[in-house]
Amino acid sequence: MAPVRNGRVLFNEIPTSRWQSPLFIMRASLTMIPVGSQTIDLENAPLEGGFLVKTLVLSIDPYIRSRMRDSSITGYLATTSTIFTIRINAVILCTSCHDVSPSYCIVAAAIAFQEYFVAKDASVFHMLENKEKLPWSIYIGVLGMPGQTAHHGWREFAHAKKGDVVFVTPGGGPIGATVIQLAKAEGLQVIASAHSENKIEFICSIGADVAFNYKTTKALDVLQKNGPINIYWDNVGGETLEAALEAAAVGARFIECGMISAYTASEPYIVKNLVQIIAKQLRVSGFIVTSLDDKWLVDFHKEFPPKVASDQIKYKEDVSKGLESAGQAILDELTGKNKKK
Amino acid sequence: MAPVRNGRVLFNEIPTSRWQSPLFIMRASLTMIPVGSQTIDLENAPLEGGFLVKTLVLSIDPYIRSRMRDSSITGYLATTSTIFTIRINAVILCTSCHDVSPSYCIVAAAIAFQEYFVAKDASVFHMLENKEKLPWSIYIGVLGMPGQTAHHGWREFAHAKKGDVVFVTPGGGPIGATVIQLAKAEGLQVIASAHSENKIEFICSIGADVAFNYKTTKALDVLQKNGPINIYWDNVGGETLEAALEAAAVGARFIECGMISAYTASEPYIVKNLVQIIAKQLRVSGFIVTSLDDKWLVDFHKEFPPKVASDQIKYKEDVSKGLESAGQAILDELTGKNKKK
Repeated sequence: MAPVRNGRVLFNEIPTSRWQSPLFIMRASLTMIPVGSQTIDLENAPLEGGFLVKTLVLSIDPYIRSRMRDSSITGYLATTSTIFTIRINAVILCTSCHDVSPSYCIVAAAIAFQEYFVAKDASVFHMLENKEKLPWSIYIGVLGMPGQTAHHGWREFAHAKKGDVVFVTPGGGPIGATVIQLAKAEGLQVIASAHSENKIEFICSIGADVAFNYKTTKALDVLQKNGPINIYWDNVGGETLEAALEAAAVGARFIECGMISAYTASEPYIVKNLVQIIAKQLRVSGFIVTSLDDKWLVDFHKEFPPKVASDQIKYKEDVSKGLESAGQAILDELTGKNKKK
Repeated sequence: MAPVRNGRVLFNEIPTSRWQSPLFIMRASLTMIPVGSQTIDLENAPLEGGFLVKTLVLSIDPYIRSRMRDSSITGYLATTSTIFTIRINAVILCTSCHDVSPSYCIVAAAIAFQEYFVAKDASVFHMLENKEKLPWSIYIGVLGMPGQTAHHGWREFAHAKKGDVVFVTPGGGPIGATVIQLAKAEGLQVIASAHSENKIEFICSIGADVAFNYKTTKALDVLQKNGPINIYWDNVGGETLEAALEAAAVGARFIECGMISAYTASEPYIVKNLVQIIAKQLRVSGFIVTSLDDKWLVDFHKEFPPKVASDQIKYKEDVSKGLESAGQAILDELTGKNKKK
């Protein structure tokens, strides 16, 4: 069998402009370069005790932006290398490693991306059976990191009580949408925001009691009418966090999952009412999903796949085909042009 | 027996200027007016099923400033009434209430302040025996609300582990000094700040490993040298909170007890790195001491008086004599001129 193309996506340029600026959009093609010049002989690739993997799906997530920085700037995620490191789903084609089966397994991890690669250390991957025969792409969405983030964070920090009001922002992404459904499954009232009428329709369809467009409506107005809130799921930070602090009930739980406004804004927003953390006796918890895997991942793999298969947990996906579209897909994610993950 | 003076302190004027400004200092005498025109006949005061109380000590605490506001402005503490409501210690002189003993008991609560008053509802007071025969004033300090704040907050939120580094700011006040001693009793490393050389000497004498003057030294410099910190006791907020966020270890606990910078500054400081709550996976807990009384007050009354009596927990006090000095004492507290509580 002749060698086949073994494409990579190279990280070429640190974006200096803000995500929303025309300059960043124009330069997207320079930031992520698809390269197809390498080839691989799939029958004769030297395994050297490892296993050959074919990548099926790339996971395009907002955190990617924070990795596109100069390595001298500290951050909680490592900077990306030239060969872009990213979460993938993949199948194992063949193996000389006795721990790894060459059958149809899924592999999900943050690794240097290439269409085909030989892996040595099976312990850095997560092997799944996919008993429900769900599409592989779901394993980077509601059954992957975003779904796990929602599940772990909710189980660890929500401490939901009957009658609680929950504010999820944004509710239209794969994390927020999952949180909405977890909250509704416990019978709570849910307020959620999104940036388009399409997404608002979606979050209403999965159970949000109050949905609003954060581009046209002030969060504080909505929360003052429908609050106070007992649980705040924050992916946004900044002015929305300030509104949530203002509208929090005494003893509310703030689950700090992301502050996308802090990554995108050139100047941080002045949150003027941090003293409400004391006044309202809040519990503010920041987390990174992988730190909670030890505690919650087994439960997740038991609970989520059957619920997704039986439509108890709904999801939407955006899938871009082909390596060449990776850069644009990342840009669409960061600028909110994608419909769903 | 002839009627005696029954003085009050009237709250006369909402301070509009910042605490540190000369204008506020000049007007201190207008804000709190001692009034001695009322009298009371101690032998014939109508008890009507209540009990007669004589005030011994007023508790002058920073929270008082936040109560001196227009009642249209919401806050987590009620605004003060014209007769100033404040924590006191007092003795019960005589009683017609069968639940209340006229013997030497202590009464501590936030009530409208007057030298003598007839109380009806014993349940709003806290009765103490003072078996150790400690000075009554201690029961508004290390054995009162400040000591309870340190005790309850530490027990509930510190989750101290061997080798932890603790940052207490400020460490020279009655809350901070108690926190330092609780941390040292668990064998932890303690960094603490104060605003004068006298106070720095004091916090070193009670065990702080690193002490610095926050008026002349940047907290961030000290923390970067001696951190990262695992526990942050915050009475300050603002720039100091920002430094603590920057120097926090992963999984650090932030105990938010006060943000005096938020009460005093006319413009809130921009805390630029809230995203560290996520990056460092912090647990940020705001609290008000009374909410934790149900859980921790019994333990406190068992543990603290014998430790104070045996000098295992040390304290310092500032005592002003006479009703007339109440306004100045509050001002000294707010402007940092007092040596200790």
